[in-house]
Amino acid sequence: MLGRAKVAFLLADDFEDSEFRGPYDALTAAGFEAVVVGAEQGQHLEGKHDESVSVDRSIVDARPEDYSAVVIPGGHSPDRLRADERFVRFVQAFDRLGRPIAAICHGPQLLLSAGLVKGRTLTAWPTVQGDLRFAGAIVIDEPVVHDRNWITSRGPRDLDSFCAALVRALR
Amino acid sequence: MLGRAKVAFLLADDFEDSEFRGPYDALTAAGFEAVVVGAEQGQHLEGKHDESVSVDRSIVDARPEDYSAVVIPGGHSPDRLRADERFVRFVQAFDRLGRPIAAICHGPQLLLSAGLVKGRTLTAWPTVQGDLRFAGAIVIDEPVVHDRNWITSRGPRDLDSFCAALVRALR
Repeated sequence: MLGRAKVAFLLADDFEDSEFRGPYDALTAAGFEAVVVGAEQGQHLEGKHDESVSVDRSIVDARPEDYSAVVIPGGHSPDRLRADERFVRFVQAFDRLGRPIAAICHGPQLLLSAGLVKGRTLTAWPTVQGDLRFAGAIVIDEPVVHDRNWITSRGPRDLDSFCAALVRALR
Repeated sequence: MLGRAKVAFLLADDFEDSEFRGPYDALTAAGFEAVVVGAEQGQHLEGKHDESVSVDRSIVDARPEDYSAVVIPGGHSPDRLRADERFVRFVQAFDRLGRPIAAICHGPQLLLSAGLVKGRTLTAWPTVQGDLRFAGAIVIDEPVVHDRNWITSRGPRDLDSFCAALVRALR
């Protein structure tokens, strides 16, 4: 049995609630399986507001080739993820597969720390846009930016276009 | 009357409590006047834990030449400050005066967004160290790094050396 296409959400505490919930619901409604990948299986992760999510799969056991796409919600979660070399290596390996990576708000911080942004075109939360430019990325201040396998957005107000672009990329 | 030398603390919500309180108490104990500079005078700013601090002076009214040094505590405060062009311009003007700037943890994010880090030697919170390197800074993973007028540290566990270096620079 092949099962449904799986999408990994890379998540740590203090994520921006809507940037997890929006894509999660959009993907499951579209028939995809959403998998929360975190530091420790079963761990409860808290959003900045009121979401509490449990980790489906530890990063230790997550294999990039098992997933059709990766989503990186924003908030303070990406700064925690990029402090953990396992998430950095995961996203590097996943990018080599050329499959969709969707990052919103502070999400692109993980791509930056993974050394992947130089020469790439993307967007992010306004303060992160500067960091990306200094790292050699081409930054565009638009709701959704596509560059090869990357889909990036600036923040919560871009969620509708971000989710739509993500679902389209998977179909 | 000349009064005591004044030190500006650049602060926004969600600052790292200890990185405000430590330098603030060290400076006042050493006889300096600490001034909290924030977006709006009288506004209450909340630390990530339990500090609540009121803003002494709005950034609108703060003149770089009135201060002998600037302190930038970490936490999520620096990412808020650098989203506000007034703080970016203040720190650019203050750096031109060549007076001490002490930034700890995520504090150097403000220096990064202000376009000041290329070719400078400094340290910061581990995840921010990467952003600084990508922006052309020389990053050293040590408790306190001095470079001309800059004093930088990595985080709360470096506070003793950070505060001592700051007080020394002002004497």
